[in-house]
Amino acid sequence: MDAAAVHEYFARLQGRIVAALGALDGKSFREDSWSRPEGGGGTTRILEEGNLFERAGVNLSRVQGSALPPSASASRPQLAGQPYDAMGMSLVLHPRNPYCPTVHMNVRFFCAGATWWFGGGMDLTPYYGFEEDVRHFHATCKQALAPAGKEAGAEYYPKFKRWCDEYFDLRHRGEPRGVGGIFFDDFAERDFAFSFALARSVGDHFLAAYLPILERRKGFAFGEKERGFQAYRRGRYVEFNLVYDRGTLFGLQSGGRTESILMSLPPRAEWRYDWKPEAGSAEEKLYTDFLKPKDWV
Amino acid sequence: MDAAAVHEYFARLQGRIVAALGALDGKSFREDSWSRPEGGGGTTRILEEGNLFERAGVNLSRVQGSALPPSASASRPQLAGQPYDAMGMSLVLHPRNPYCPTVHMNVRFFCAGATWWFGGGMDLTPYYGFEEDVRHFHATCKQALAPAGKEAGAEYYPKFKRWCDEYFDLRHRGEPRGVGGIFFDDFAERDFAFSFALARSVGDHFLAAYLPILERRKGFAFGEKERGFQAYRRGRYVEFNLVYDRGTLFGLQSGGRTESILMSLPPRAEWRYDWKPEAGSAEEKLYTDFLKPKDWV
Repeated sequence: MDAAAVHEYFARLQGRIVAALGALDGKSFREDSWSRPEGGGGTTRILEEGNLFERAGVNLSRVQGSALPPSASASRPQLAGQPYDAMGMSLVLHPRNPYCPTVHMNVRFFCAGATWWFGGGMDLTPYYGFEEDVRHFHATCKQALAPAGKEAGAEYYPKFKRWCDEYFDLRHRGEPRGVGGIFFDDFAERDFAFSFALARSVGDHFLAAYLPILERRKGFAFGEKERGFQAYRRGRYVEFNLVYDRGTLFGLQSGGRTESILMSLPPRAEWRYDWKPEAGSAEEKLYTDFLKPKDWV
Repeated sequence: MDAAAVHEYFARLQGRIVAALGALDGKSFREDSWSRPEGGGGTTRILEEGNLFERAGVNLSRVQGSALPPSASASRPQLAGQPYDAMGMSLVLHPRNPYCPTVHMNVRFFCAGATWWFGGGMDLTPYYGFEEDVRHFHATCKQALAPAGKEAGAEYYPKFKRWCDEYFDLRHRGEPRGVGGIFFDDFAERDFAFSFALARSVGDHFLAAYLPILERRKGFAFGEKERGFQAYRRGRYVEFNLVYDRGTLFGLQSGGRTESILMSLPPRAEWRYDWKPEAGSAEEKLYTDFLKPKDWV
């Protein structure tokens, strides 16, 4: 187990992704580094009001402590009071064009004593659905899970896809957040090298999963109607992140850096009472054809 | 104890408030009635895109059940499994003009067997602060707590004012939601008649607490800058309601009517990374002079 190697990979991944997104947008990312008095810190990279991205945040963070609080180890009481090291790289991209989907990706690592695990995943939240985009995203997710050969993807993809559908579920709406992707946690299979390779593969596949979709849709013409629907749907993103997302809530409750945690929220969101899309509209199609968990590959 | 009388008062109060606000706005409220299969129901009155109000929701709701779930009676285990009746009238008004504050008011009643209590309160969330408005609002709150004579207001106001400051606290921001007001729960003092009179007095004082402020500010000229600041600050309202508000979270988790519960959210909200108001600006004054709990009467 080599936490330093994991952190180095996360930091390089952040650099690589930020460089690619900045080049594509034409506006560069702002950088803020911060440290935690108790140990650890992070680097927040953010681009607002860009040409392509209305808000794009790519976070690297690390939380180290000398004694794991009991609340963080409820399911593994043997870890309570042990020194720990938790780190992650996470991003949320909110493009301006409503035909370009919002996307989220995260890889994370936790260790305390001899115990360690990886977590991560990526998921897509379109405003207007395109089957080929969703198929491409899921196919790339599946590829990402095959670092040790084809059989690994076949094993993990269905499980991590289902986990993603279950996690990104707005139960009070009876709606998924988007069209899913993959999600995993507590991953420590075979050995450290194998598990780390799988997490790396997820991080390494992100640009291949998302950029072709962005390239395909970024030139689509849109108007006030599409922007309004995007703002309305972004309200759902806010609801999910503030009501359900464990990372967000844990971060806010544990005194994390609020501005870095809430970077995932959209730049603007709208709420309309009991609004329904027009029958037969492209907006209705999102609900009928895309916001239902289904097999995409 | 007379639950029917409480419900009748809440229903009349909703009607009275909706009539006054609709007359002032010039656009009338929409009405949706709904019922719960398990018992109870409600009437949602909402006005969107009005002349004065961008979104104004006034909710009446009642939840009846044959057996109180253990999660709802953790602090009073003797009530678990008993038939219960919970009802409330709550409102949130989001005026369009950023010089007009957002306001929230709620009165509620719970009974199970021989146990009953009232709760309620009102609080103000300005975007641009005016001392006379805040003083007027708090002075009216204090008056509202004196239905049994001056000494009652003197007794309850400091306690309920502090409770409000403690409740509407965005801990992750180190900021209160607004300039406070009053908040109380579990109120069952002297006898039913006394406690009901206090809750009624809070409901009856709402229009007197808020309308003079609205009248005073509704003609103020504003532009994109003020609307932008309002949208940014409304993001804090969203954060509070989705992360901390017990009524909202309990409603969403217990299968309440989502559209009625989330009527409290602003029509639009914005997030900007690590944004700070300009030194010496009216926006900065909100933070320095108003968003600090202090004595206003």
